[in-house]
Amino acid sequence: MPAPILTLTTDFGLFDHYVGVMKGVILGICPRAQIVDISHQVGAYAIAEGAFAIAQSYRSFPRGTVHVVVVDPGVGSERRAILMEAAGQYFVAPDNGVLGMIYAREKHKVRVISNDRYFRHPVSQTFHGRDIFAPVAAHVAAGVLPSRIGKTISDYVRPAFERPRQTGPRMWNGEILKVDHFGNVVTNFPADDFPALEELAIGRAKARRLVRSYEDARAGELVVIAGSSGYLEVSVKQGSAAKKIGCRSGGACHIRV
Amino acid sequence: MPAPILTLTTDFGLFDHYVGVMKGVILGICPRAQIVDISHQVGAYAIAEGAFAIAQSYRSFPRGTVHVVVVDPGVGSERRAILMEAAGQYFVAPDNGVLGMIYAREKHKVRVISNDRYFRHPVSQTFHGRDIFAPVAAHVAAGVLPSRIGKTISDYVRPAFERPRQTGPRMWNGEILKVDHFGNVVTNFPADDFPALEELAIGRAKARRLVRSYEDARAGELVVIAGSSGYLEVSVKQGSAAKKIGCRSGGACHIRV
Amino acid sequence: MPAPILTLTTDFGLFDHYVGVMKGVILGICPRAQIVDISHQVGAYAIAEGAFAIAQSYRSFPRGTVHVVVVDPGVGSERRAILMEAAGQYFVAPDNGVLGMIYAREKHKVRVISNDRYFRHPVSQTFHGRDIFAPVAAHVAAGVLPSRIGKTISDYVRPAFERPRQTGPRMWNGEILKVDHFGNVVTNFPADDFPALEELAIGRAKARRLVRSYEDARAGELVVIAGSSGYLEVSVKQGSAAKKIGCRSGGACHIRV
Repeated sequence: MPAPILTLTTDFGLFDHYVGVMKGVILGICPRAQIVDISHQVGAYAIAEGAFAIAQSYRSFPRGTVHVVVVDPGVGSERRAILMEAAGQYFVAPDNGVLGMIYAREKHKVRVISNDRYFRHPVSQTFHGRDIFAPVAAHVAAGVLPSRIGKTISDYVRPAFERPRQTGPRMWNGEILKVDHFGNVVTNFPADDFPALEELAIGRAKARRLVRSYEDARAGELVVIAGSSGYLEVSVKQGSAAKKIGCRSGGACHIRV
Repeated sequence: MPAPILTLTTDFGLFDHYVGVMKGVILGICPRAQIVDISHQVGAYAIAEGAFAIAQSYRSFPRGTVHVVVVDPGVGSERRAILMEAAGQYFVAPDNGVLGMIYAREKHKVRVISNDRYFRHPVSQTFHGRDIFAPVAAHVAAGVLPSRIGKTISDYVRPAFERPRQTGPRMWNGEILKVDHFGNVVTNFPADDFPALEELAIGRAKARRLVRSYEDARAGELVVIAGSSGYLEVSVKQGSAAKKIGCRSGGACHIRV
Repeated sequence: MPAPILTLTTDFGLFDHYVGVMKGVILGICPRAQIVDISHQVGAYAIAEGAFAIAQSYRSFPRGTVHVVVVDPGVGSERRAILMEAAGQYFVAPDNGVLGMIYAREKHKVRVISNDRYFRHPVSQTFHGRDIFAPVAAHVAAGVLPSRIGKTISDYVRPAFERPRQTGPRMWNGEILKVDHFGNVVTNFPADDFPALEELAIGRAKARRLVRSYEDARAGELVVIAGSSGYLEVSVKQGSAAKKIGCRSGGACHIRV
């Protein structure tokens, strides 16, 4: 039987011991686990960024993978913890919308995590990653049935992530979902919906060419490309589009086709 | 038999290849090892920070785990390398006090690492992580008896980490152990010793409320909380207490109960 | 049979989900893989830096290890992808010279990666790490014969990495290969070729003592040491030589013996 796979997506950063501690808890419960870091550098408390990271990643993992997503500004409050089943995989997270981009895409079932038999005790008020999310995920990876974790619910938090809004016959307003490490600017315009365009504008910067690969861009030119994300991205070949434009995640963008 | 677990805590950072190289050496000796990073971003040569990271982490790992801690300003000097057994686990480190917070807490046995049969040769003068600590730890994880590594010693380095000092009938002076990624300020006041307080002061900043969770704090308010560390922490709900206060690790703090 | 080992060296950084996604693809193909990060913080598009990282690392890994190196400014262009066999190990990378420091050192065989049966489909134009390099490496790790991946070629890209140039009877010009996390300045003067020296100069800074270990240096003194890299390094005991000198990777250095 292949080793169970668990992934971790958090805003814990890598300076502290928090991520290592979660892994210790997981391995104590599920010693054969393959643990994969998606990112621990989601902005602190940035739910939308965490939602983007996990939504971009889960389809690259095999069935049965258990994803732990801890971006949790409400830790210690009455917010619930949830276990979602979708796409043949499992997702453990606070009920704050961080799984919201997956709700929109996949048939899913959500359970409230309530059976404290699968928690680490005593449960701290500030580190549910260690005491609730990691141990519950490890138990699921080790074979505990989701039905043992808690009951299905339907009133989980469904965030309203920005979708492009049509503002004219050939105009849409959109949002910057993410600026990546290379300075590529990922918009929320789905590449499949915009097979051609006249202009993609961010502030005063305008990209007018939709290219097939970076290779087709000229040095220093702002281009639009159907990124590996599935969205239109604004890029500069071997450079940083974000630096050239001066934009950041959450900012507005506009498209004219 | 479950796979042996090894953890790594270093000040090597993640830019260079040093950590990957240690893992290669470990897997060459102990191919089934589960290797977990605690942190590689301990401040360069910051022994107390490394001591805090490992002391905060080991209890989340199962018995038999082998912890490698390399914060080693004295590499290449006459400082010894040690193997400690404590809490059913193993710790491999330079003898510079980096295991000191565990000495204070657990029954322990310390050996000097002397049997160079378990080293990688030739031994570099600047990278004992690769040539001594990683291979010795991997051999221990693979089943080599500690008694084969070297003799027990009792004159290992015992650092004097700051403990709170009582300065009046209801007053104590303490120290900031750590500022974490979220800006939480971890003091050295053990939460169990201070179940109530009137004021925790850092510089001119004063926190007057001990709350049970971030949820009980008002927006922007400095609060004290019994952190997951086991110590009192000064925090701001969904914000950075360290930024608000302007303090850093090693600084002074004061409590009045 | 021991688990196959795969290493990853990229310029993807750790903020985004890209590295996690590659690992998901690998584990879907080769579930038992031991995946080790060498570094993901190679400078963006910095081929020489990636070449240094992998050249410094592979010898610490056991035979049969599969190394994936993705520093790929030409992704989406006509540049080829290659599979190299050398030192009993495998290397998967773009054909842009990033394996060049190993060509110089080891007997090697290079194949062009052409059999798209081992790719992930559809192949994105911007993320060959996910769609070509990771899956091909995972198939090789899982036992697919290199001959199934593609034909051997001899016209792969051989970069001209700087070697020291003799400029006088006892003078050589060299280059800074790398400044590491501790501020050690790694030159391209092979330690074995320079067992003694009168002066190693970088800009106006001059180091005049070749010491055996940091211990032999005085506080604040610039010294030269035969580093774990195999090259002469300029260091300051418990400090940053790079900060003291004000230099960076790619800069010039000079030696007089």
